Amino acid sequence: MAPPTPRLVVPIDLKKRPWEQKLPLHNRWHPQIPAVAEIKAGEIFRVEMVDWTGGAIGDNDTALDVKSVDLSTVHYLSGPIKVVDADGIPAKPGDILVVEICNLGPLPGDEWGFTAIFDRENGGGFLTDHFPCASKAIWYFEGIFAYSPQIPGVRFPGLTHPGIIGTAPSMELLRIWNERERELEENGLQSYKLCEVLHSRPLANLPSTKGCLLGKIQDGAPEWETIAGEAARTIPGRENGGNCDIKNLSRGSKIYLPVFVEGANLSTGDMHFSQGDGEVAFCGAIEMSGFLELKCDIMRGGMKDYLTPMGPTPLHVNPIFEIGPVEPRFSEWLVFEGISVDESGRQHYLDASVAYKRAVLNAIDYLSKFGYSKEQVYLLLSCCPCEGRISGIVDSPNALATIAIPTAIFDQDIRPKASKLPIWPKIVRKPDVFKCSYDGNLPITRNPSATT
Amino acid sequence: MAPPTPRLVVPIDLKKRPWEQKLPLHNRWHPQIPAVAEIKAGEIFRVEMVDWTGGAIGDNDTALDVKSVDLSTVHYLSGPIKVVDADGIPAKPGDILVVEICNLGPLPGDEWGFTAIFDRENGGGFLTDHFPCASKAIWYFEGIFAYSPQIPGVRFPGLTHPGIIGTAPSMELLRIWNERERELEENGLQSYKLCEVLHSRPLANLPSTKGCLLGKIQDGAPEWETIAGEAARTIPGRENGGNCDIKNLSRGSKIYLPVFVEGANLSTGDMHFSQGDGEVAFCGAIEMSGFLELKCDIMRGGMKDYLTPMGPTPLHVNPIFEIGPVEPRFSEWLVFEGISVDESGRQHYLDASVAYKRAVLNAIDYLSKFGYSKEQVYLLLSCCPCEGRISGIVDSPNALATIAIPTAIFDQDIRPKASKLPIWPKIVRKPDVFKCSYDGNLPITRNPSATT
Amino acid sequence: MAPPTPRLVVPIDLKKRPWEQKLPLHNRWHPQIPAVAEIKAGEIFRVEMVDWTGGAIGDNDTALDVKSVDLSTVHYLSGPIKVVDADGIPAKPGDILVVEICNLGPLPGDEWGFTAIFDRENGGGFLTDHFPCASKAIWYFEGIFAYSPQIPGVRFPGLTHPGIIGTAPSMELLRIWNERERELEENGLQSYKLCEVLHSRPLANLPSTKGCLLGKIQDGAPEWETIAGEAARTIPGRENGGNCDIKNLSRGSKIYLPVFVEGANLSTGDMHFSQGDGEVAFCGAIEMSGFLELKCDIMRGGMKDYLTPMGPTPLHVNPIFEIGPVEPRFSEWLVFEGISVDESGRQHYLDASVAYKRAVLNAIDYLSKFGYSKEQVYLLLSCCPCEGRISGIVDSPNALATIAIPTAIFDQDIRPKASKLPIWPKIVRKPDVFKCSYDGNLPITRNPSATT
Amino acid sequence: MAPPTPRLVVPIDLKKRPWEQKLPLHNRWHPQIPAVAEIKAGEIFRVEMVDWTGGAIGDNDTALDVKSVDLSTVHYLSGPIKVVDADGIPAKPGDILVVEICNLGPLPGDEWGFTAIFDRENGGGFLTDHFPCASKAIWYFEGIFAYSPQIPGVRFPGLTHPGIIGTAPSMELLRIWNERERELEENGLQSYKLCEVLHSRPLANLPSTKGCLLGKIQDGAPEWETIAGEAARTIPGRENGGNCDIKNLSRGSKIYLPVFVEGANLSTGDMHFSQGDGEVAFCGAIEMSGFLELKCDIMRGGMKDYLTPMGPTPLHVNPIFEIGPVEPRFSEWLVFEGISVDESGRQHYLDASVAYKRAVLNAIDYLSKFGYSKEQVYLLLSCCPCEGRISGIVDSPNALATIAIPTAIFDQDIRPKASKLPIWPKIVRKPDVFKCSYDGNLPITRNPSATT
Repeated sequence: MAPPTPRLVVPIDLKKRPWEQKLPLHNRWHPQIPAVAEIKAGEIFRVEMVDWTGGAIGDNDTALDVKSVDLSTVHYLSGPIKVVDADGIPAKPGDILVVEICNLGPLPGDEWGFTAIFDRENGGGFLTDHFPCASKAIWYFEGIFAYSPQIPGVRFPGLTHPGIIGTAPSMELLRIWNERERELEENGLQSYKLCEVLHSRPLANLPSTKGCLLGKIQDGAPEWETIAGEAARTIPGRENGGNCDIKNLSRGSKIYLPVFVEGANLSTGDMHFSQGDGEVAFCGAIEMSGFLELKCDIMRGGMKDYLTPMGPTPLHVNPIFEIGPVEPRFSEWLVFEGISVDESGRQHYLDASVAYKRAVLNAIDYLSKFGYSKEQVYLLLSCCPCEGRISGIVDSPNALATIAIPTAIFDQDIRPKASKLPIWPKIVRKPDVFKCSYDGNLPITRNPSATT
Repeated sequence: MAPPTPRLVVPIDLKKRPWEQKLPLHNRWHPQIPAVAEIKAGEIFRVEMVDWTGGAIGDNDTALDVKSVDLSTVHYLSGPIKVVDADGIPAKPGDILVVEICNLGPLPGDEWGFTAIFDRENGGGFLTDHFPCASKAIWYFEGIFAYSPQIPGVRFPGLTHPGIIGTAPSMELLRIWNERERELEENGLQSYKLCEVLHSRPLANLPSTKGCLLGKIQDGAPEWETIAGEAARTIPGRENGGNCDIKNLSRGSKIYLPVFVEGANLSTGDMHFSQGDGEVAFCGAIEMSGFLELKCDIMRGGMKDYLTPMGPTPLHVNPIFEIGPVEPRFSEWLVFEGISVDESGRQHYLDASVAYKRAVLNAIDYLSKFGYSKEQVYLLLSCCPCEGRISGIVDSPNALATIAIPTAIFDQDIRPKASKLPIWPKIVRKPDVFKCSYDGNLPITRNPSATT
Repeated sequence: MAPPTPRLVVPIDLKKRPWEQKLPLHNRWHPQIPAVAEIKAGEIFRVEMVDWTGGAIGDNDTALDVKSVDLSTVHYLSGPIKVVDADGIPAKPGDILVVEICNLGPLPGDEWGFTAIFDRENGGGFLTDHFPCASKAIWYFEGIFAYSPQIPGVRFPGLTHPGIIGTAPSMELLRIWNERERELEENGLQSYKLCEVLHSRPLANLPSTKGCLLGKIQDGAPEWETIAGEAARTIPGRENGGNCDIKNLSRGSKIYLPVFVEGANLSTGDMHFSQGDGEVAFCGAIEMSGFLELKCDIMRGGMKDYLTPMGPTPLHVNPIFEIGPVEPRFSEWLVFEGISVDESGRQHYLDASVAYKRAVLNAIDYLSKFGYSKEQVYLLLSCCPCEGRISGIVDSPNALATIAIPTAIFDQDIRPKASKLPIWPKIVRKPDVFKCSYDGNLPITRNPSATT
Repeated sequence: MAPPTPRLVVPIDLKKRPWEQKLPLHNRWHPQIPAVAEIKAGEIFRVEMVDWTGGAIGDNDTALDVKSVDLSTVHYLSGPIKVVDADGIPAKPGDILVVEICNLGPLPGDEWGFTAIFDRENGGGFLTDHFPCASKAIWYFEGIFAYSPQIPGVRFPGLTHPGIIGTAPSMELLRIWNERERELEENGLQSYKLCEVLHSRPLANLPSTKGCLLGKIQDGAPEWETIAGEAARTIPGRENGGNCDIKNLSRGSKIYLPVFVEGANLSTGDMHFSQGDGEVAFCGAIEMSGFLELKCDIMRGGMKDYLTPMGPTPLHVNPIFEIGPVEPRFSEWLVFEGISVDESGRQHYLDASVAYKRAVLNAIDYLSKFGYSKEQVYLLLSCCPCEGRISGIVDSPNALATIAIPTAIFDQDIRPKASKLPIWPKIVRKPDVFKCSYDGNLPITRNPSATT
């Protein structure tokens, strides 16, 4: 009859740096990073986590921290956590690990977050060719609501979720990752050409010993160098889940993760108070520290039953998700579309990324008429509960993507109005995001038709 | 005090072929196609329309009509409709035409629709390299619900919408379209290489006199040949709206369309009883004839106020949409994700199209475990109210796209279950889609890991 | 392969009066009213209907028709419809008749409706002691939306539904009805005392030959007088369903009706474009003519399986409902509460009717600050999609009821605002409802604290 | 730039009894109960609270604690809290106190709750004449979800809210309360007759020194006896808000409370993890200890602007509420209706309480067919997110009320099924609620038609 108070299995001390935590954090995927805790299927447990940068971005009045952030160290993850069944038998490769998110939120005493645009030559973002400067907005939480002194006139309820949740890869899967990403990086020039409108960013983030944190394997340990040299970066989502950034993965959601190593070795991090589909600014959710209360189950042999591989090996699978029943309700949406024609007017073939880029650019230009700078809107669309949709992917040559923005998050009516009186930018929204200069070498894309 | 019964401005006689209708239809975009009707801002009017193929696909037991369909004649559109304000002054270039969808539905006596996969060498679809055969499913309507004898065990409410709604382009805009699409087609080989995992379909559909229907400009008229030779095909959505395929554009929605020619010249067609985001099978919504009841307003000079151009000219704009308040409610969704790694295991750079392709393939494989063939699921995901999202577009090198499927449309529980008893394909769903053979020359992609 | 176009089984000719229709209407419940049509389980059929008054209230600029309306003739119902199974065997007493609402709407060419307050001495309403005058507002439809010239500044999507749908009672059930309602009427004085704050209206509406219409049994037929003398009025909902006035009974809903006579003898009428919970003004929905497209199934012996009687006989049952998936979404609601203390300050014991009365009065007073007369708000709350809830029914002595109003139906922000500038009744809403004088004898309740 | 961590203004130590807390609790409404804390408009503060019984009901395997509970001591409230504006000037009578619920939840370490039926002669409930025995179910929380070992097969997300939130009454208002409730109690016999189908419970709960707790005014203080003799009980909701039991008053809601005394003196308590409309079992929500994070604003003179009195004095007002944007989504509801005919078959006049009683009885009987005892269902409908609606309140003589139950909270399909195979109570749900015997003197109502 004892009430099931969630057991705290990974505590975080906010006064300590990531590498000083009692249970060591890690920032790479590797099968040999040892579990720091063990939980039983069916029990509810609590995992705390630092924000993805481990405190590198401050609640202060400058974006210099964003500009110079060391991205070799992200994301700081809590775990791995070993999962065993009621009889103590660990999850096995081929099983599915079912993770239910029972509860989550910011860490008490740390109720704030940040959204940032990285400098074009240190991380960048989806629109980095338009917005090359490092910028930052701070968000404060009032329970379920967030507001930012840097983006006034906006307040919205968060659909809080962990950006990263995943199981450890096996050595075989890790090798697949490293090979295919290396292949991309090596053929970068060609690929760069193809994607030139999209980015000037690193094509991939290959394993690197710099900034590497491997949990219980201390720097200096005999195996450290080997593991650090092959452990995968945490930036992209992959077969093990990882950096999924699915904005609806909130309370009551379930995740069906493939198991590749004994014990599953679940890790999680990168808590988001709120995120828009696409997380376009890259450091783009409302990033924060936080906690998860989870319940796990093991589906023995579940990968074969439910996760058909799609690719050359049985490891080429993806997780499945069930979305929870508790979400902010919005009834009115303003929708911007984009087609796969880029800013120079060039036609691309059914390219949803180009189409979404144009949809977001359209939305930014539109909203900037209401008293905001474009950087403010870029940050806002990255973190507010907007929906990014692939509406048409077959009507050659144009893919058509949309971004839908709930009108209720604004304190003014942002819909087009037939009567032009009163003229819109009535409310001069003076505060602005913190912004550095851009002193890099890459050319900046300008909208040839923009007036400003 | 007279009640505002909508005035029928474009009638359709279902017993007649598209080119025999009282008000002639058209299947191209061109500024010189004359208006067939005129409406006043503020009045409610009714537009009827044939299905996009103009009756080429039958309510019968074969897919041969799909295989041999003449795609040079699609889409048959109703209009153009000239819009004038209360004083009789037409909409002018630079205005915005606000179109409210008051009501819509199938044409009485024609309450059925079809969803089809085109043959790989005659139209294809998003997964044409996997599913090269022409296939077809028929849907019957029971009020707001649709069901198909070919895909048993599924029934869902439609979120009915017009696939195509748009204004006429100006000559200048038409030239921009033709040039950029010709450029794509001419550099096809290179582009084809880039997109090889996505398609083996025509890169673009350039103007062609074959199959061309120009409304009041009869074949044989002196200007016919010129206009037919430069009029744009209706396949892709473009700056004028057109084939937007936004599935939520149902009752109560508003569309803010740019006006490029005097009178706006609004055309519409391609009614969908229901569609999934992406319309992946290409002929992929539940295609039907239907009617729209619309109300228009003119925002004078609205383009400058609301539609910032994004591209080299002031014409590079996109419409804006407001979604209506009446939609089917679903509370439970099963979500499949895809990353931008293709079926061969090759890594692509932040390519949302590849990611969405993998998400859809994952969903198809999963649902095929529940008694369906993969063609059945491909058709279903193309037309049921599923949501296609761009979840992450910044986590190099993986774009992450998701497809969310409402579980309530199935008569069985399709969620993964920890207890494997009873084993799933309990219900053998014998009926299958109508399917032709594929006798073309292009290689078929197979999932290397698939058991079947 | 023939598409299932709904078969029209009860047609209405709007140019004819109720008693002139091809298939005769009826306005009473009686087992011996013969069926006018027969349908098979599984088929989709269409039933058309007049508005509940059969055209007595006009689309004109007076409320005199409301004041003098003959309530002995309402409601005009379409049917009865005999239901047989696939083998032609009729539904039997003890079965459940499952009725699915596939589609519904106004009759083409008759897209308008009315909401009315009856004169205190001819029908009255929930607040008849406050609002004794006959009043009327006309509503025009724009597809799913309704607006009224008499209540400007409001527009909302309808959740259209039939106010009345029910099966014929058996003679035994009819006798139970007549006895219990006669008992109430005869003990009226006492009961009137108890409920004095609620009404000054007829306690019950007992059978009466005046105004009686019995379908195929023509006035003058030998059995007419007997049947007319015992046939139940259609005003209250009862065991057979009937006047349920459940506002969410729209497209996609299912109704599980008990069957009391062979063939079930389904009747329906009283179509509402929209209604608020409680339908407080009595003629209070947006009343209109309309059509239903229905599908029926028979659950043999279903009453025993699913409908436990609650009362002295096995006939004391109530229908069960499943609400459909398509409803207007509203995200913001303003909620007014009432407790069971009446306007004189007198305490009532857990009386939800009194509590709801006070909640509605509170809402009316509040909204009248925004440029509306109280009659306008009374009519509006009767027909707009507001929710009436029993929030607390146990906290002696106060029942607590609430009325929740979606804020999006107004074109101004009706929420309380901390900043009182600009002062609210900015928009003088001059048009008003059509209103008669009250020349009756009953005292009028005034709010002692009201300023006006 | 300091993040706004909510300030804890009323702490609760769960190891201490209600009267031992650091800031003393109170269980009566009286203007002279001194404030225990002060907050500024605009700041976010945290209030903790015991469960409404102050720990009288245990997480154990007996209902004896329910049977013998001392109801003279409920509800234990946290506060009063004095509210001042930014300049330190307190709220004044005539102002409105706007309270926003930013966050709320169970107290950490106390994640469980209970739902109970009181003994018919010690508290009772809405159906006390049917269910006279004290009963109890324990609920455990898994984040947003609750489940009960005593009601297996059910799990649902909570819409957590404070049952009680209100301001202190003035002496004048207190006198009004006491007079009208005394009047009811004194005319009890007559009133009892009227309401005989509803209750055999105390008609009102008049002031009583027994069990009285007055916060900072200690028992023995000179004024204690006077205040205790006139302080109002907290059972009913009244003009000051108080026990509103509005189930949707969750995160993001706003409450506009009238201010009757200087400083407003806000008190709150009776936290509910979840509640059904009506809270029919009386101790009927999932009762728990908990915390609120609130933000207050003062609208100077707001009562006159927004709260029109409805009754003999300017104090006869009720609060207004805005519902928050975050609620569990349910798409399918099974709806039971009741009409104002009681279990004996007697007709009542437009009595929504009787109608709701019958609706709830119908729902209980129906759900008891799925493997539950009636007590289990009674408890469940009291605390699960079901909606109680007043559907028709004008169709003489029948009021029509409905209770809508979300089908997704059950792990079996509870909808009526045409195919009766497999027969329903497949899953024998053996565990049952904890239940005492009833040894009182009042007659028990039985459904004459029930088989069991």
